[in-house]
Amino acid sequence: MTYDHKPKWLAADWGTSNLRLWAIGDDGAVLDMRTSDKGMGQLAPEEFETVFVDVAADWLDTANTVVACGMVGSRQGWVEAPYQTAPCAVCPSKMAKALVLRDGLSVHIIPGIRQTDPADVMRGEETQIAGYLAQNDGWDGVICLPGTHTKWVHVSAGEVVSFQTCMTGEMFALLSEESVLRHSIADSGWNEDTFLEALSLTLSRPERMAGHLFSLRAAQLIHNTDAQTLRARLSGLLIGAELASTKPYWLGQNVALIGAEAVSQPYLAGLAAQGIDVVRADATDMTLAGIKAAHALLETG
Amino acid sequence: MTYDHKPKWLAADWGTSNLRLWAIGDDGAVLDMRTSDKGMGQLAPEEFETVFVDVAADWLDTANTVVACGMVGSRQGWVEAPYQTAPCAVCPSKMAKALVLRDGLSVHIIPGIRQTDPADVMRGEETQIAGYLAQNDGWDGVICLPGTHTKWVHVSAGEVVSFQTCMTGEMFALLSEESVLRHSIADSGWNEDTFLEALSLTLSRPERMAGHLFSLRAAQLIHNTDAQTLRARLSGLLIGAELASTKPYWLGQNVALIGAEAVSQPYLAGLAAQGIDVVRADATDMTLAGIKAAHALLETG
Repeated sequence: MTYDHKPKWLAADWGTSNLRLWAIGDDGAVLDMRTSDKGMGQLAPEEFETVFVDVAADWLDTANTVVACGMVGSRQGWVEAPYQTAPCAVCPSKMAKALVLRDGLSVHIIPGIRQTDPADVMRGEETQIAGYLAQNDGWDGVICLPGTHTKWVHVSAGEVVSFQTCMTGEMFALLSEESVLRHSIADSGWNEDTFLEALSLTLSRPERMAGHLFSLRAAQLIHNTDAQTLRARLSGLLIGAELASTKPYWLGQNVALIGAEAVSQPYLAGLAAQGIDVVRADATDMTLAGIKAAHALLETG
Repeated sequence: MTYDHKPKWLAADWGTSNLRLWAIGDDGAVLDMRTSDKGMGQLAPEEFETVFVDVAADWLDTANTVVACGMVGSRQGWVEAPYQTAPCAVCPSKMAKALVLRDGLSVHIIPGIRQTDPADVMRGEETQIAGYLAQNDGWDGVICLPGTHTKWVHVSAGEVVSFQTCMTGEMFALLSEESVLRHSIADSGWNEDTFLEALSLTLSRPERMAGHLFSLRAAQLIHNTDAQTLRARLSGLLIGAELASTKPYWLGQNVALIGAEAVSQPYLAGLAAQGIDVVRADATDMTLAGIKAAHALLETG
């Protein structure tokens, strides 16, 4: 493959399950993208370099700098990029001491952010937030990043003020795939009315949450409720409980949501039903924008 | 093996994971007990008879009646014993039409109980409740049966009035063994103060539940909180959320708890901290007493 413009530096989003690597040109444009399923979860620290060099390959002929975000910077990653502690600047002023590889290639890893009380951590989301602020200068409000572990982040004056993680995505997967409910929950399908009704139930009466779950199984046994409806009901119960828990974050706030479309949709619908108007941005776009902002900081020293 | 007294009938507790079979003598005394790991979960309907005859073996020389409870009576069991619908008498007045096997052996299966709204079901617990009432004539109150799926059952005037199931035991297993929290939660160990503190947190502020879970992982990463403490905290958070959900059941009520010691202890401690005095009975004893009460009904026609 040939490029009109040679890669000048590389952007990496290296998470638990996979690696995405972009070749960036002189003018900051993305020239190409490559992926690998060699995520942090399956690599020992000494294996990262080999995987990286394999994927980057010919890009290393001209690119001599890498800026990476995600679990690659965790204690079990390539090299630990110690957390910043919130409240802290959104765009990390210090990045992990660069690793210097063969031929003077240097790798910079964007640190995650931790919060002392209540204890919480993020790695990767801080980069998406930096990307959002890079594109929306001076923006204040709350950013929701839905996913396996959804983050709610209060951003003000260019700082991450506080944040809260909810394991809603992981709970949905465990309950619908591993628990007794797996017999009653469809793999796909949806019922929007059921979703909103269930969400309203646990948002308005969160104390009843624990009693609602087994009822999904019983509804199928007793009422033959279909598995798609029960899928939407489980999602609604869990997101309703999450919205109850994160109410101080979103109520009356300016909310931006960064995520892929499928995972974002239920949150958008749920928040809209509470009268919250949400701006959505794409997760990959924000990751790239955040890595570019971090790279720009390197350039300016 | 020889018996001073020959088995007259057999009592069976046949659940999802195993079978317990007791030989009962002429005078109602337990002569012996046998177990098998051939639970309902791994058997097709046509396989139950072979397993049963294998385990009962020589007991069938003199015993010609079997009374069974548990998932053996579910749609996927030996033969379906259709649910009674609450409110209904605690001691089932009708048992599933007996299966008649070789040599005139007859098998009676105690039906479970269902509730229409909110949808809920039990199979097995109704027998323990019948056992408790058989030993505590005229008892009114709430019976808690902790386990994978904990049941809270309002009993009045010899009837199951209403009940609620919470998947707390299954949630604890999934979160501590399958989720991201598995890295931070010990397999055993306890810290009673931590447990009670966490329980009080979700009982008094149930809307915050969703925000507390990931914090367990973060507490280990940031504060090096030990895995035994986090085990107690997870249990406290989940049981606190369950107590919030079941408050109409236990608050100001006469509460009896039927369960094995290990699973009962956190509930006893949690309820005691709310000023609720609880009487405890052993689950196996109550199962046997309930099967005997059902057998007595057969005898009197």
